[in-house]
Amino acid sequence: MNFIEKLDSAAKRNQSKLCIGLDVDLSRFPKKFLDTDDPIFYFNQYIIENTSDLVCAYKPNIAFYEAYGIYGMEALIRTIEFIDEECQVPVILDAKRSDVGHSAAAYAKAIFEIYKADATTVNPYMGHDSVAPFINYRDKGVFVLCLTSNAGFRDFQTAGLKEPLYISVAKHVKEWNHYGNCGVVVGATSPEELKDIQKITGDMPILIPGVGAQGGDLKNSVKYGGRRAIINSSRNIIYAESPQKAALDLRDQINAAGNEQ
Amino acid sequence: MNFIEKLDSAAKRNQSKLCIGLDVDLSRFPKKFLDTDDPIFYFNQYIIENTSDLVCAYKPNIAFYEAYGIYGMEALIRTIEFIDEECQVPVILDAKRSDVGHSAAAYAKAIFEIYKADATTVNPYMGHDSVAPFINYRDKGVFVLCLTSNAGFRDFQTAGLKEPLYISVAKHVKEWNHYGNCGVVVGATSPEELKDIQKITGDMPILIPGVGAQGGDLKNSVKYGGRRAIINSSRNIIYAESPQKAALDLRDQINAAGNEQ
Repeated sequence: MNFIEKLDSAAKRNQSKLCIGLDVDLSRFPKKFLDTDDPIFYFNQYIIENTSDLVCAYKPNIAFYEAYGIYGMEALIRTIEFIDEECQVPVILDAKRSDVGHSAAAYAKAIFEIYKADATTVNPYMGHDSVAPFINYRDKGVFVLCLTSNAGFRDFQTAGLKEPLYISVAKHVKEWNHYGNCGVVVGATSPEELKDIQKITGDMPILIPGVGAQGGDLKNSVKYGGRRAIINSSRNIIYAESPQKAALDLRDQINAAGNEQ
Repeated sequence: MNFIEKLDSAAKRNQSKLCIGLDVDLSRFPKKFLDTDDPIFYFNQYIIENTSDLVCAYKPNIAFYEAYGIYGMEALIRTIEFIDEECQVPVILDAKRSDVGHSAAAYAKAIFEIYKADATTVNPYMGHDSVAPFINYRDKGVFVLCLTSNAGFRDFQTAGLKEPLYISVAKHVKEWNHYGNCGVVVGATSPEELKDIQKITGDMPILIPGVGAQGGDLKNSVKYGGRRAIINSSRNIIYAESPQKAALDLRDQINAAGNEQ
């Protein structure tokens, strides 16, 4: 099953466009996990066991694992193995890699063959030959950063000659989508722009971060995100007193927003 | 000693603007290294011992280490430790990271505290708050991708409203350089653009890849790269029959190009 099939299947089975970001932070873990021999893995296992019937995807951000060195990377590998064994939910490894051809190929190998993710995020700044080595894994998903949800996105992404740079990125991604495995990342903080982007990208999955701490617009993200919108939430779910309840509530809010249309 | 001091000191001591890229590839290693218990480390040790008096910096690209999984990352850590113990040559860990604030902070922690690099490369697409967590390590160097040396750079980097995007990036980096620890990456494949960029960035170090396999213009890169040009070569040196001779030749070519002016 390729990434898109796995995504569609989990979204349908769990009636969910919710993606949970597994952004680990030992300082926020309940104490019981810190007393184990593998706190990151057991914390993730607890989140996954409580939410695997409520999500369409999990999204570990590799930065938080790298910050714990070799141990963090081992725990990430173990987490992805566990998700693969435990539930048919795809893993989007959020790595935002960017490099030229042969280095990009090495990154793609690490992400898809070492970490064994189903999909990843990439940064478009270096152009088509920096993205191609990822896309060439035809069964894997590739989300290209288009319009991000952070404060600094206006520094460059909204610049442009005839059109904003993010529109140019969306059009390029559409061209790059030979194998039907591309998507884009668009922050929930820019719903009007999301609408314009989705008109270009059509049925491609759109990974939408920023509905939590960053104050994104949930309703309009669902409204304009198209049929493969993937709404991500990380810390608001995994550090909630009950991650299961937080996931259930957000999934239902997403579905309610979808039904209002 | 901060990054800039370490760079200036090595450049002066070794009379060199040459940076060697430690882009490891087991399939290209001489067989004697493959028979050891840590081929990546012993290969790098051999390169470093033969070239540490000929360079101003080493630049491992982390992609090639990640592609070998946990082992690769362990060998990278050991390599950087060895460089630190063996010679006062700064390490630019080429990682081209990009992410929003808290994730960028986790990447910066990994690069500067786990891998213990002296400097790194970052991708500007996400804007100022994606770069700030790196710059906040005041003693470390941060090279922002400006105009890269790959074929796809024209997809976005040369777009722009009043000016090309790479000029806008260079101007932003100049603003971000509060602590004097920023630099830019400009491919040797675009010497005229390098000239324009260097006029903006002044004394900031400019990391210049692309003189080898990618066909960049060595003479004009030296001519237009300013006083802190760092000319990188990776595979043409480390897989040469004599890496020492290849490094010596290229260092001398760089110096000859500088003296012609």
